[in-house]
Amino acid sequence: MSVSATLAANEIIAARRAAGQDVLALAFGEAGLPVHPALIGQLAASAGEANYGPVAGIGSARDAVAGYWTRRELTTGAEQVLLGPGSKSLLYATLHSLQGDVAIPQPSWVSYAAQIELLGRKAITVPTLPGEGGVTDPQALEQTLRDQPGITAVVATLPDNPTGTIASKQTVEKLAEVARRHELVIVSDEIYRDLVFDQSNVVSPAQWAPERTVVTTSLSKNLALGGWRIGAARFPGSPLGQKLRAAVASAASEMWSAPVMPMQHAAAYAWSDPTELVERVGQSRQLHAAVARAVAGVFAQHGAAIQEPQGGFYVYPDFEMFRERLEERWGIEDSAGLAQVLLDDFNVGVLPGSAFGAPTGTLTARVATSQLYGNGTEQRLAALESADPVKLPWIEEKLSRLDSVLEDFLR
Amino acid sequence: MSVSATLAANEIIAARRAAGQDVLALAFGEAGLPVHPALIGQLAASAGEANYGPVAGIGSARDAVAGYWTRRELTTGAEQVLLGPGSKSLLYATLHSLQGDVAIPQPSWVSYAAQIELLGRKAITVPTLPGEGGVTDPQALEQTLRDQPGITAVVATLPDNPTGTIASKQTVEKLAEVARRHELVIVSDEIYRDLVFDQSNVVSPAQWAPERTVVTTSLSKNLALGGWRIGAARFPGSPLGQKLRAAVASAASEMWSAPVMPMQHAAAYAWSDPTELVERVGQSRQLHAAVARAVAGVFAQHGAAIQEPQGGFYVYPDFEMFRERLEERWGIEDSAGLAQVLLDDFNVGVLPGSAFGAPTGTLTARVATSQLYGNGTEQRLAALESADPVKLPWIEEKLSRLDSVLEDFLR
Repeated sequence: MSVSATLAANEIIAARRAAGQDVLALAFGEAGLPVHPALIGQLAASAGEANYGPVAGIGSARDAVAGYWTRRELTTGAEQVLLGPGSKSLLYATLHSLQGDVAIPQPSWVSYAAQIELLGRKAITVPTLPGEGGVTDPQALEQTLRDQPGITAVVATLPDNPTGTIASKQTVEKLAEVARRHELVIVSDEIYRDLVFDQSNVVSPAQWAPERTVVTTSLSKNLALGGWRIGAARFPGSPLGQKLRAAVASAASEMWSAPVMPMQHAAAYAWSDPTELVERVGQSRQLHAAVARAVAGVFAQHGAAIQEPQGGFYVYPDFEMFRERLEERWGIEDSAGLAQVLLDDFNVGVLPGSAFGAPTGTLTARVATSQLYGNGTEQRLAALESADPVKLPWIEEKLSRLDSVLEDFLR
Repeated sequence: MSVSATLAANEIIAARRAAGQDVLALAFGEAGLPVHPALIGQLAASAGEANYGPVAGIGSARDAVAGYWTRRELTTGAEQVLLGPGSKSLLYATLHSLQGDVAIPQPSWVSYAAQIELLGRKAITVPTLPGEGGVTDPQALEQTLRDQPGITAVVATLPDNPTGTIASKQTVEKLAEVARRHELVIVSDEIYRDLVFDQSNVVSPAQWAPERTVVTTSLSKNLALGGWRIGAARFPGSPLGQKLRAAVASAASEMWSAPVMPMQHAAAYAWSDPTELVERVGQSRQLHAAVARAVAGVFAQHGAAIQEPQGGFYVYPDFEMFRERLEERWGIEDSAGLAQVLLDDFNVGVLPGSAFGAPTGTLTARVATSQLYGNGTEQRLAALESADPVKLPWIEEKLSRLDSVLEDFLR
């Protein structure tokens, strides 16, 4: 086991930069935006709060989270909510409590499979439908369930990391049916939900299988608070959901005690959707959309297969049609080789598809487009406020650099 | 599995208080002191820091932690240090990486056994020597290792929770010898280290078995920052230690990503031992000593067996000599019954010895003396600054209430 691929790439790139290299870092899944001043104020005002507090989170934070989901068409009571130090920890504790093996989409976020392995269970990858990353193809899932006993849960990511797409309502509805038929719990990671570019595309399995869907979120992506480590989980109100929440709370009390107290106070504010933060999330969504689309355009222009990005800040190009050329010129045989050559020969950092469990030999990469917004708070704020961010000189320059790199790489 | 006993008791007592009951809450292991203003300032100043940062912690925080231990006679390099969201999470990830079963002292902190069970391993309890809680009797440990294969580690708590005592240098040295002979890793939880009343009694197995001892600490107890969730682990510089640290960092990256960023900045300051915080810890130590001794005195006066407290803020009375009387009058047969009667009939909250794995039937309880410092910041600060805190009216009143309760309870 090595350190989480995405965090490891971040550290390698930081070391290269420290050594004076000009790396175009597109590996790390960080929102790349400054913290809203109102949030800084909230945290500063709560700095003196240092009690452990309840395992599930303080009442005001759980109320706010319940309101957050209720306003998003998932009616939620505070008693369904559990806060934790990031949704990663909540996912780990939830998977722990689910006992059995877990079906996950292929590809999917690096940590699902890794967590399941740490728990001594099996992560069973199931393909997704074309352009619908993050949700296992319901028919393929059904087949897998017939072939492999012992699966108790299926993970979904809506919208998806790494592909930047979101599954259709029909697919999610079918996933819900399969889950119900086979008594699976659905773990729906909706950390990028607020960053779906067209919010009418938002969809959650909790709409169709409310009795068996655990939804997780956090403030790491929509409000760029990754380092604050504050996440929340929504458990079903059903007897199954109540049992599961109790088990996760029990595990949480032994794994991390309680969510971080000062962050809970700030999160109570953030999850209440105050106007200024709703505006900030709206601006972020537009920026992510504009830049992700521009980056996808650059890859498409050079002939890589790429899906239209629909949410978050990732694109996932596939270089399959360049296989012969890439092998001949660079000795590339798989996505790891692809990412290595881009880093070694072009100083461009991306993550290989293999880090996300893509089938061996595919020539895919995940590109975090949020890394293009600029250096420092000033450039990033300008990007956030720009009506046409891809025309900002520092973003245009990086897009153009990417263009040149691909020109040379795929020659 | 229920929620961690100590956190659960906290929540029950909070609910009784909310219902208007006047509970003498002596269950929860919180330092009961306000946050030092300098720490509030540090956190407020770092509120805008929201990058994920390195898994192991930022350089300044790791340097500060290395300095903290080096100044305490455990020379440490920053490359040996890993920060995490509380030492509980670091202990969990460390126990995870140790693979096998784990020997723990009997009694010992509630979460060791619970974590080991969550990991699907066996927690094997080993008695301690009289008055030397927190360290397994080396001879008994050796016998256990002969009887039970598969033990790869032994946990020690220095000073101890629940007993408030600290093992002698000789015992710790012998523990180190046994660990080396049997190739065990020692996990030494030293979260209360700075709160050993006579600092010349401080001892760590890392002094005698540096190649195999992992030490954990946090700011939760010495600086009363439980809700901030910031802890640190010190791994051996040996090849074994390097391998273990890499495994824990890998697990950490999948379990919690990275320590909480704003807290890391404040922790870099705290672990550098600035004069004002050294003074604050010194004051806290004196207050904890004075009140723990006074509480122990009350129990002793009524005839309970109790060890002289040596560190932290707990005492651990044993009512064995009242067994017949307690059974006859209250129907008490074990420590759970003891705690229940104290709560139901006297509104006094303590934790039963059984929560700490004490043998079935013992009549022990853990009493958190830090809960007596007063209500609100003003009383607690006054307690902290008092030359004779047990004479403060609100502390004296609670000691006297405890005295009356015991008078009636043991009549």
